[in-house]
Amino acid sequence: MPITSSFEKHISFIKSDIEKSLNKIPLTNKPKYLYNPIRYIINGKGKRLRPILVHLVGHSYSAEPEDLMKASMAVELLHNFTLVHDDIMDNDSFRHGKPTVHKKWDEPTAILSGDAIFVLSQLLLNGLPQIINQRFNEVSLNICEGQGMDKEFENDPSISMGKYLTMIGKKTGALLGLCAELGALLSGQKQKEAHILFEYGLNLGLAFQIQDDLFEIFGDESSMGKSLGSDISKRKQTALTILARDDNSEGWLHFSSNYSKISDYQSYFDKNGIRNKVEKSIQHYISKANHALSSAPKSDKDHLEKFTTLILKRNF
Amino acid sequence: MPITSSFEKHISFIKSDIEKSLNKIPLTNKPKYLYNPIRYIINGKGKRLRPILVHLVGHSYSAEPEDLMKASMAVELLHNFTLVHDDIMDNDSFRHGKPTVHKKWDEPTAILSGDAIFVLSQLLLNGLPQIINQRFNEVSLNICEGQGMDKEFENDPSISMGKYLTMIGKKTGALLGLCAELGALLSGQKQKEAHILFEYGLNLGLAFQIQDDLFEIFGDESSMGKSLGSDISKRKQTALTILARDDNSEGWLHFSSNYSKISDYQSYFDKNGIRNKVEKSIQHYISKANHALSSAPKSDKDHLEKFTTLILKRNF
Repeated sequence: MPITSSFEKHISFIKSDIEKSLNKIPLTNKPKYLYNPIRYIINGKGKRLRPILVHLVGHSYSAEPEDLMKASMAVELLHNFTLVHDDIMDNDSFRHGKPTVHKKWDEPTAILSGDAIFVLSQLLLNGLPQIINQRFNEVSLNICEGQGMDKEFENDPSISMGKYLTMIGKKTGALLGLCAELGALLSGQKQKEAHILFEYGLNLGLAFQIQDDLFEIFGDESSMGKSLGSDISKRKQTALTILARDDNSEGWLHFSSNYSKISDYQSYFDKNGIRNKVEKSIQHYISKANHALSSAPKSDKDHLEKFTTLILKRNF
Repeated sequence: MPITSSFEKHISFIKSDIEKSLNKIPLTNKPKYLYNPIRYIINGKGKRLRPILVHLVGHSYSAEPEDLMKASMAVELLHNFTLVHDDIMDNDSFRHGKPTVHKKWDEPTAILSGDAIFVLSQLLLNGLPQIINQRFNEVSLNICEGQGMDKEFENDPSISMGKYLTMIGKKTGALLGLCAELGALLSGQKQKEAHILFEYGLNLGLAFQIQDDLFEIFGDESSMGKSLGSDISKRKQTALTILARDDNSEGWLHFSSNYSKISDYQSYFDKNGIRNKVEKSIQHYISKANHALSSAPKSDKDHLEKFTTLILKRNF
């Protein structure tokens, strides 16, 4: 498929450009206590999906490359900041195949280096239009709220699908929304138009997260980068467990208190039509993302359509 | 002393104004996981010294009251964010007479609510001149560096007084510097002039922190809000322990490995002239603060001079 392949080359070019710029952020060496973990985080093997999206939207509307780079690095740092702190809160030991900061060093180091990375993201936005700053921080607050809901839900087995969607919308969707929106705002689109791009990213993020829940049960361990069923063993709620409970609360309770093997979960979700429902839900949000894209101001949206396909195929 | 008393009334009026405004920051109720601790932090019994300084400088140069209030709330939230995270890192249990957030709730709650408070501080700056935002975040990075140095020094018993001063300059001084600088910048002072006000706050902060080290040994427990000698028992380095080691490293090593009572430390520092040296050092930074104030652009500096005296007398 030559077209896909040329798009993938394009993406990988943008990615390497972003990584070069991330490595050029002027950082002093001292104190090492702070800057060693910061370098470790910035040099992590992330997919850089979020900054890539900023660039793709920005290119499609002809924004200034330098501004796009600043904003795209800022969203990547924001993302990294939230990962470092979430990993402490969730006591996760690995991220992108490397030990998490609080495991490699300790919790104080991870708290502080996360904080400083967030400050660096704010500094990158300097000189960009004020609306960029505002939206960046509004969405940062959304992400905190989403994480707060996620923690709250750990102790509440009655969460509805609606609340779950609000949570992942804030925790995962809003940041992808912001990326698309910033690309549009930096191209001089008005807030109203830029908001349509936010909707694109938000729905893409919802589809992506629900798909993550699905892959967590039915996926391929090596490409997921973590062991299957880890959310279930942590009693985290996912689209699948919520739909299973909604569908047959007694049956689900009985099943989940008696079974723990991933293959048992796979066959339960398959037999009871949960897998199917979840796949439909993913399709629903993909359609909404596509719909937003088609209502967005005119431009060359070819790359954005390809991006949707690419990230949902996890083909990168 | 009627003059002091009218100034104290003025300060307490500004303080209550700041607290009213902090309570009016529009916060939703949900998720409670996030917003309950945020309210707990914002309603804490802080002295509000930092936002008061923003107002005093701003008033002396006739800045817009509304802008001053936004910037002053932002520095107070920045301060609170650092306290919440530092309390986790240092495992402190009380702050302003109340349990710290990670003790009242847990560490994830404290990490997340600290993060969100920092985001709220960024949102408050929206609409102010970009230089405000820039300096705010430059100093936020200084504070992270200062905390990084502080943590680094815990495991290094050879820290020089010079390094210690750099550390407290970043961790404590820079924020007071920022407060004075923001007041000047919001009054339309040029960066160069505003920087003189930064120097004022920085040196005031150094004097304040070294005095804190002194009070930690020679102070009054009830007004310190913590037990005397707690830094010593945590093996934290202070101006006194560093000067004692510089003065007679063997003697100090022998003493500090054999004695632990606060009264023993008091007499050691007294007899060996350490207390005297530290008192001189405090005077040195007060003089530098006063010198900066006298070189600052002309205005009614009467209140700032009184502020210096007031905060060093801990008379509020």
